[in-house]
Amino acid sequence: MSNPVTILVVNVNTTEEMTRSIAALAQQAASPDTTVVGLTPTFGAESCEGNLESYLAALGVVDAVQRYEGSYDAVVQAGFGEHGREALQEVLDVPVVDITEAAAHLAMMLGHRFSVVTTLDRTVPLIHDRLLVAGLTTQCASIRASGVGVLDLEGDSPRVTEAIVQEAKRAVLEDHAEVICLGCGGMAGLDTAVREAVGVPVVDGVTAAVRIAEGLVGLGLTTSKVRTYAPPRPKKIVGWPLPPLT
Amino acid sequence: MSNPVTILVVNVNTTEEMTRSIAALAQQAASPDTTVVGLTPTFGAESCEGNLESYLAALGVVDAVQRYEGSYDAVVQAGFGEHGREALQEVLDVPVVDITEAAAHLAMMLGHRFSVVTTLDRTVPLIHDRLLVAGLTTQCASIRASGVGVLDLEGDSPRVTEAIVQEAKRAVLEDHAEVICLGCGGMAGLDTAVREAVGVPVVDGVTAAVRIAEGLVGLGLTTSKVRTYAPPRPKKIVGWPLPPLT
Amino acid sequence: MSNPVTILVVNVNTTEEMTRSIAALAQQAASPDTTVVGLTPTFGAESCEGNLESYLAALGVVDAVQRYEGSYDAVVQAGFGEHGREALQEVLDVPVVDITEAAAHLAMMLGHRFSVVTTLDRTVPLIHDRLLVAGLTTQCASIRASGVGVLDLEGDSPRVTEAIVQEAKRAVLEDHAEVICLGCGGMAGLDTAVREAVGVPVVDGVTAAVRIAEGLVGLGLTTSKVRTYAPPRPKKIVGWPLPPLT
Amino acid sequence: MSNPVTILVVNVNTTEEMTRSIAALAQQAASPDTTVVGLTPTFGAESCEGNLESYLAALGVVDAVQRYEGSYDAVVQAGFGEHGREALQEVLDVPVVDITEAAAHLAMMLGHRFSVVTTLDRTVPLIHDRLLVAGLTTQCASIRASGVGVLDLEGDSPRVTEAIVQEAKRAVLEDHAEVICLGCGGMAGLDTAVREAVGVPVVDGVTAAVRIAEGLVGLGLTTSKVRTYAPPRPKKIVGWPLPPLT
Amino acid sequence: MSNPVTILVVNVNTTEEMTRSIAALAQQAASPDTTVVGLTPTFGAESCEGNLESYLAALGVVDAVQRYEGSYDAVVQAGFGEHGREALQEVLDVPVVDITEAAAHLAMMLGHRFSVVTTLDRTVPLIHDRLLVAGLTTQCASIRASGVGVLDLEGDSPRVTEAIVQEAKRAVLEDHAEVICLGCGGMAGLDTAVREAVGVPVVDGVTAAVRIAEGLVGLGLTTSKVRTYAPPRPKKIVGWPLPPLT
Amino acid sequence: MSNPVTILVVNVNTTEEMTRSIAALAQQAASPDTTVVGLTPTFGAESCEGNLESYLAALGVVDAVQRYEGSYDAVVQAGFGEHGREALQEVLDVPVVDITEAAAHLAMMLGHRFSVVTTLDRTVPLIHDRLLVAGLTTQCASIRASGVGVLDLEGDSPRVTEAIVQEAKRAVLEDHAEVICLGCGGMAGLDTAVREAVGVPVVDGVTAAVRIAEGLVGLGLTTSKVRTYAPPRPKKIVGWPLPPLT
Repeated sequence: MSNPVTILVVNVNTTEEMTRSIAALAQQAASPDTTVVGLTPTFGAESCEGNLESYLAALGVVDAVQRYEGSYDAVVQAGFGEHGREALQEVLDVPVVDITEAAAHLAMMLGHRFSVVTTLDRTVPLIHDRLLVAGLTTQCASIRASGVGVLDLEGDSPRVTEAIVQEAKRAVLEDHAEVICLGCGGMAGLDTAVREAVGVPVVDGVTAAVRIAEGLVGLGLTTSKVRTYAPPRPKKIVGWPLPPLT
Repeated sequence: MSNPVTILVVNVNTTEEMTRSIAALAQQAASPDTTVVGLTPTFGAESCEGNLESYLAALGVVDAVQRYEGSYDAVVQAGFGEHGREALQEVLDVPVVDITEAAAHLAMMLGHRFSVVTTLDRTVPLIHDRLLVAGLTTQCASIRASGVGVLDLEGDSPRVTEAIVQEAKRAVLEDHAEVICLGCGGMAGLDTAVREAVGVPVVDGVTAAVRIAEGLVGLGLTTSKVRTYAPPRPKKIVGWPLPPLT
Repeated sequence: MSNPVTILVVNVNTTEEMTRSIAALAQQAASPDTTVVGLTPTFGAESCEGNLESYLAALGVVDAVQRYEGSYDAVVQAGFGEHGREALQEVLDVPVVDITEAAAHLAMMLGHRFSVVTTLDRTVPLIHDRLLVAGLTTQCASIRASGVGVLDLEGDSPRVTEAIVQEAKRAVLEDHAEVICLGCGGMAGLDTAVREAVGVPVVDGVTAAVRIAEGLVGLGLTTSKVRTYAPPRPKKIVGWPLPPLT
Repeated sequence: MSNPVTILVVNVNTTEEMTRSIAALAQQAASPDTTVVGLTPTFGAESCEGNLESYLAALGVVDAVQRYEGSYDAVVQAGFGEHGREALQEVLDVPVVDITEAAAHLAMMLGHRFSVVTTLDRTVPLIHDRLLVAGLTTQCASIRASGVGVLDLEGDSPRVTEAIVQEAKRAVLEDHAEVICLGCGGMAGLDTAVREAVGVPVVDGVTAAVRIAEGLVGLGLTTSKVRTYAPPRPKKIVGWPLPPLT
Repeated sequence: MSNPVTILVVNVNTTEEMTRSIAALAQQAASPDTTVVGLTPTFGAESCEGNLESYLAALGVVDAVQRYEGSYDAVVQAGFGEHGREALQEVLDVPVVDITEAAAHLAMMLGHRFSVVTTLDRTVPLIHDRLLVAGLTTQCASIRASGVGVLDLEGDSPRVTEAIVQEAKRAVLEDHAEVICLGCGGMAGLDTAVREAVGVPVVDGVTAAVRIAEGLVGLGLTTSKVRTYAPPRPKKIVGWPLPPLT
Repeated sequence: MSNPVTILVVNVNTTEEMTRSIAALAQQAASPDTTVVGLTPTFGAESCEGNLESYLAALGVVDAVQRYEGSYDAVVQAGFGEHGREALQEVLDVPVVDITEAAAHLAMMLGHRFSVVTTLDRTVPLIHDRLLVAGLTTQCASIRASGVGVLDLEGDSPRVTEAIVQEAKRAVLEDHAEVICLGCGGMAGLDTAVREAVGVPVVDGVTAAVRIAEGLVGLGLTTSKVRTYAPPRPKKIVGWPLPPLT
C-alpha cells in the first residue's frame, strides 16, 4: 500500500500557467507518496467555455496523455464539465478520474444536496449534461454561474472570490445546497476562502480527484473493459494520433 | 416556401463509400426542391464504434463543415450516437439535426414506445447517453445490438438484414417497442426490409433528419443563440481550424 | 416525393374564425405541394380552457375527421394540451401530429431547454400532463400562463402580444429557456412578434405540426398498429359515431 | 361522523350487468352507513379496451353523473386505466376517486412494489399513462396482461381466474411485485381467489375506491378548486350536456 | 363490515400531552365503530426534529406497540417524516399506516400538486427522503418549513397558525400547490384554520391515516409478507426487546 | 498531509468475529499511516437481514461510536444497505462514510453501469432504498441476491463464492453491469475471487469506504452542518445514550 504513486493531472486548456497552478495544488493535496505530473494539451483553446472548446479538450487531453512517455498510475482530467473522460477510459488501463464527477461524488457524502458554482452562464448546461451522463444530478441543487471567465480566475482577485462567494451563498439560501463544488479547474485554491465566507464545505474537483485516484490505485481498481470502455477495435484512423510536435 | 434548399449531410467516419450511399438515400427521401450534399471528414476513423472514435467524429464533422465552401441551409450529422452536435450548433447559424435525435423524435410520434437496433454491443451505452442528453430516453423501450460491425453494413448481405430483423422482433415482443429506429447511419436503406419483416414502422435517422431539417428551414427556425449555443468567445486556439489539406 | 399532400388541420373548439385563421397560417407555412384543410368540430366548446372542454375536444376532433368525406394524407390536431391524439391514432391509418408535441419536438432541436407560454393558468397542468404522457417534459424549463383567454387571442391586440412577450422573457431569464413554444393553437401568427421581442426562436405548434406531418408522409411513415394504436375491436357502441348533422 | 353516505359508482361501459355486479361488490365492501348507487353511461362502448372507448367513457361518465338526480357524497369512476377523472373533478364539488389510482394508493401501503394484472395487452399502455399522470408509477413493478377480454370476465370462469393468477405469479416471481392490483373494474370479486392462489395481498380498485371515498367524505375533504379543477368557465358549448334520453 | 375496529395511534416522541391530543383528534375523525388507542414511546426524544431523534422514534414506536397487551386491528405511526414504518410492517400482521404517506396519498387525490408545510427547516430533507422512499415525490410541489418547533405547536397560539398559513399561501402561489399537507403530527387540529385562511384542502396526516387504516381493515387487506416485510428471521438479538419498565 | 489517521470501522451487527475480519481487511487496504479500529455494537442483531435489524443497527452504531473513548478522524459504517448514516453525520464532526454508498461511488467511476450482489432476496429492497436516498440508483443496473445468509459468509466456503459469482455473471450478461459491488460487509475479502471469475472490477464497500474516508480527512472535508446534519437541538431524551455496560 505504501508504493509511490504517479498521477497525471491533465489540464483541458492550453494555458500552461493554469496547468502549473493546478498541478501545484494537486501535489499539495496529495498523499506524501504521490507524485503529481501536470500536462498541458498541445492542441485546443486557451480556456474552455463552450462546446467546441470542450470537444477540442476531449482530444487534446487524450493526445497529451498518449504523448507522455513516463509511467503513471492514474489520470485526472482537470476540466469541469468538459468532454473526453470516456475516451481516456477507453484507451488507458489505469483509472481515470474526471474532476466534475470527483467533486460531485465527495460532495454527496458531505451533505443532502450540493450546488456547483462555475464561471460563465453558458457553461452551466455543459456541466449539467456531464453530471447527467455520470448519474450525478439527483442530489445537485443547482449549477450557478458567477460570471467570471476562466482566465480571469488566474489573478485570484478579491472581486473574483467575491463573485463566487455571492453565488455560493445564494445556492445555500435559495437552492438549499449544503455543500459547494467549485465548478472550474482554475478555481482550485479558492476553497478555503469560499468555505470561510459561506460556512459550508467547499469541494474542489482537482484535489478531490487526486485523492479518489490514489484510493483507486491503492485498491487495485481500474476501468472495466467489458463493454463501454473496451479498447478501440483495430481500424484505419486518419490524422490520429496527432503528428509529432515540430 | 418553395425556395430550393441545400442540406449538408455529414458522415462521421472517413469511409467515402458510406458517405455516398447515405447521401444518395438522403437525396431520394428529400423533397424535390432539396439538394443533398454529402461530406466526409478528412480526419477520424473509418467507422465509429467507440468513444475515442466518437470524439474524433465530433471534430471531424465540424472541420468538414467549416471546410465546405458552398452555401447551405441546414446540416445533418449522420452518425448514430456520436458526439459533436452541440459544437456544430455553436459554430453554425443554420439548423443542425442529429440523426440519433431525429429518429427518436419521429418514432415518438408513431408509437407508445420505440427501440433502437444498432451495430455492436459496445455502442449501446454511447447511444443511450446521447439520447439521455437530448431528453429522449423516456419513451425508449430498449437499445439492442445486432452484433454487426459498421463496415459490415456496406455489403447489405441477407445475413446482416437478418441479424437486425431478429433484434427488432425481440424489441417488439420482449421490450414492447412499437417502432424501431435503425441505430447506425450505415443502416439507411434497410428500413423497408425490416418493416416488412417485423410489421412495425421503421425509422431511419438519416432520412428523418433530412425531412426535419427541411421543415426547420421552411419555418425559418434555427438554433437559439442566447446561452448554450452562443458563438464561441474570441480566444486563442492552437491547432484549430485544422491546417489546409495538402 | 413530389406528390401533392393533403393535411387536415382540426381545430379543437367550435369557433370557426379560429379554424380559418389557423388553417390559413398552416397553409402559408406548408410546402407548395401541400393542401391544408381546416376542420371545426360540430360538438364541444367555443374554446378549450379546462378538463371537460378538453375531453369534449377529444371526441369532437375524432368526429370531425370521421365526418370528413375527402381524402387526406395526415391529420394535425390543433389544440395545445388537449386530449384525443391517441384516439385519432387508433382510428386512422394516416399519421397524426398533435401541435403540443410537434412544438416540443422541434424546440428540443433548437436549444438546451424550452418553455411554453400559454393562455390561462388553469391550463398549465393540462399541458404538463400531455407533455408528460408524450415523454417530453425532460427538456421543458417551464410552462407559463400569460393570463390571456383563448378567445381574447382572436383580436391579436398589442396587449395580448405584450402579455405573451412578458412571460416569454421571464422564461428565458428566470427559467433558462432557450426556445419558446406558443402554447395555444390560437397563438399561431404571433411567433414573429414574440421572437423579435425576446430574441430566441419561437415555435408555433400548428406550423411545426404541418411540417412534421409532411415529413412523415414523405417518408411513408405512419402510426404503429401493433399495440397501443391497433384499430378498435369490433363491439357495440351506443351514441357513436354521432348522429348526422341536421 | 356517523352520517349516512351515498357514493355513486359509475361504470365506464354500457354493460348494465357489469354495473350491477360492480355495485353489488362495492356495497358489500362499504361501511354499514354507506349506500352505493351504480350508474351506467347512456353513451359509449359495451367494454373499454382502447383509446377511443376510453375517451367515450370519459364523457359517458360525466354525463351519467350529471343526469343523476339524487344527492350523493362522492363519486367513484369504476374504469381501470380510463380517462375522465379530471373532468369529473372539475364539474363536481364532492370527492372523485378513480379505481386505477385507488388500487395503486392502497397497494403502495401494503408492499414495496405492486403490479397490475389487466385484460388485454393493448390496454397496458393506457393504464401506464393514467398511473403516470397521477404520479403513481414509481413503485409499480409491472403492468401485465392476462389476455382476457373485459366481457369475458363476466362469466368468472375458472379459465379466466387461472389466466389472471398466472400473470400475478409471474409479477411476483419475475418483477418482484409484493402486491397485485386487479386491473379491470370487471375483475372485482376475483380478489380472494387470486390472493389465495398467489399468496400476496390483492387489491381491487372498486372496493378500494369506495373505502377511500368514505374516508374523504368522513374527513370533509374534497377536490381543490384553485387551479386545475376549478369549475369550467361560462361559455358556449354545443352538444353538451347530451340531449335528454328519449 | 360493521365490526368494531381498534387502531393504535403511536406518537413518535415521548411527550404524553401530544399523544393525548393526537389520539383525541384521531378518535374524533374516526368512524363511530372505531376505537383509537394512543401510545407513547417509553424511549426517545420529547420531540423529533432530526435524524438521531427519528431513528430513536423508529425503535420507540416498535417497542411501544410490542409492549401493548390489548388487541388491535391496525397501527398508525403518528410522526411526519420519521423512520420506522418498515420495521412495524415487518413485525406486525395488521396494516400499518404512516401519517406522512397517508397525507400524501389523500392529497394526491384532491389536486394536481400538493405541498407539505412542516416545522423546522432541518426536517425538510427528512420528510423529502421518506416521501421519496414511498414513491410519493412526483406530485409534491414543495416541502416548506414554518420555523415553528414541534413543542411550540402544543399551545396552538395564533402566531403558530399564522406562520403555517403564511407558508401554505406561498406554497399555493409560488409552488402551484393545490392541496396542503400539515407536516407534523402535532399540527393535527389546525387543518380547519389553515383551510379557511388559504382556500385549499388541508390534509392532516393523523386523521388521514386513521381513515385509511379503517379502510384497509374493512377490506381485509394487510402488509404483504413475501419479501420486504417478511417476519424477521429467528436469530440472536441483544438488548431487544427492551427490558421491562421498572 | 502525512499525519497519521485513525478510522473507526463500525460493524452493524453484534458478531465480533465479523468485526475482526472486516477491520483486518480494512487495515490491509488502508494507507500506511492509517490505523483502523473495529467497533462492534453492544446492542442489536447478530446479523442484519431485515428492517427491524437495520433500525437496531442504526442506533447500535451511533451508540458504539459515542461509547468509544479514543480519538478518531473518520467513521466508516460497515453495513450494506443499513440505516443510520444520517444520525452519525448529525452527531459527529468527523466525516462519515457508509459502505453502501462508498461502493457505489467508486463503481460509478469504473464503468457505465454497476450491479450489487448481496445476501438474501429480502435485503434487496433495503439496499435499493438506501441507494435511492443517496441519489445513487441511476447507474445501478440491478441488485441481485445470492441466497447466502450473512453469517454463512463467515466460513468463506467455495459454495458461497460460487453463489456470488453466479449472480455477478448474470448481472454482467443480463443486466449489462460493467462493475460489481459486493453487497454485504461480510463479503469483504471475496473481491479478488469474484473479479477473477467474472472479469470485471469488483468493489468491496469496506475498503472503498476506508480509502474515501482517508481522502476526506486528507482534504480537510467533513459533513456540512447547515441543515440536514446540524447537531441535535438540546432537548430531553429518555433512554439515550444507552446506560453504561454492566
